Amino acid sequence: MRLTLYTDYSIRVLVFLTARTDGLSSIAEVSETYGISKNHLMKVVQKLGQAGLVTTVRGRSGGIKLARPANEISVGEVVRLTEDGFELVDCGSCIIAKACGIRGILKEATQAFLAVLDSYTFGDLPKSELNILDVLASFPDVRQKTVACVGGPDAL
Amino acid sequence: MRLTLYTDYSIRVLVFLTARTDGLSSIAEVSETYGISKNHLMKVVQKLGQAGLVTTVRGRSGGIKLARPANEISVGEVVRLTEDGFELVDCGSCIIAKACGIRGILKEATQAFLAVLDSYTFGDLPKSELNILDVLASFPDVRQKTVACVGGPDAL
Repeated sequence: MRLTLYTDYSIRVLVFLTARTDGLSSIAEVSETYGISKNHLMKVVQKLGQAGLVTTVRGRSGGIKLARPANEISVGEVVRLTEDGFELVDCGSCIIAKACGIRGILKEATQAFLAVLDSYTFGDLPKSELNILDVLASFPDVRQKTVACVGGPDAL
Repeated sequence: MRLTLYTDYSIRVLVFLTARTDGLSSIAEVSETYGISKNHLMKVVQKLGQAGLVTTVRGRSGGIKLARPANEISVGEVVRLTEDGFELVDCGSCIIAKACGIRGILKEATQAFLAVLDSYTFGDLPKSELNILDVLASFPDVRQKTVACVGGPDAL
């Protein structure tokens, strides 16, 4: 069982922006940090923006930031937004779908899954043992590149 | 979020064998009923056999059946067997994995998902509103074909 790469990247962007409490970030910076292509991230940020999760500040000193406080963005909200759906198996093509009862069981399990994700917000994350920006700082090469990118021509 | 086709087919086979309480079934019969290729089903049945969930009786009048009572086979056991794993996102490639806390949240959500599946067995299924074999009987063409297949040369 996997979530889509799209969900994965969306969560990573929001984790990064949650950790960066002191200003704007750039897509280039997020790209360098995680080793994810800027093109992919631009699509992800665009959708997160449309959903009211990320705000874009345009211009030379622009960048991106969370549109709402991190403790108002639940992990469940993001996963619901970015997954294609939660029909775990394709019952539509199955002639016994009405009778077999598996669909109801899978639905109940999925609801339990999402209930846990709904109970956590991105504001809960910095309570973990380490601070994400401390981890980033322990990778000098990445850190140097990312700092250089902030607010630069590649800001968006 | 999706389960693999392999899980889908495994569940369908077990649902079919649960409903068929009066004897052996054939792979050809399951194939005709669901419109799934026999080759795929043979691989599925082989793995279910190795896992002690399905028994194969060889020979002209042979076939397949559940290896244990349906109420001793939980849906969770099957999904754990047939899914490749439950690491929902690839944290292995992420430099902030130690710090971000998302992995723990996804793990907790996955455990809640599996706990629901563990709480149901295939023996619970016939309690649903309709009987699966009644549904099959309402598709005369399929029923005719499947009855013709039982115990025939294509039994396995």
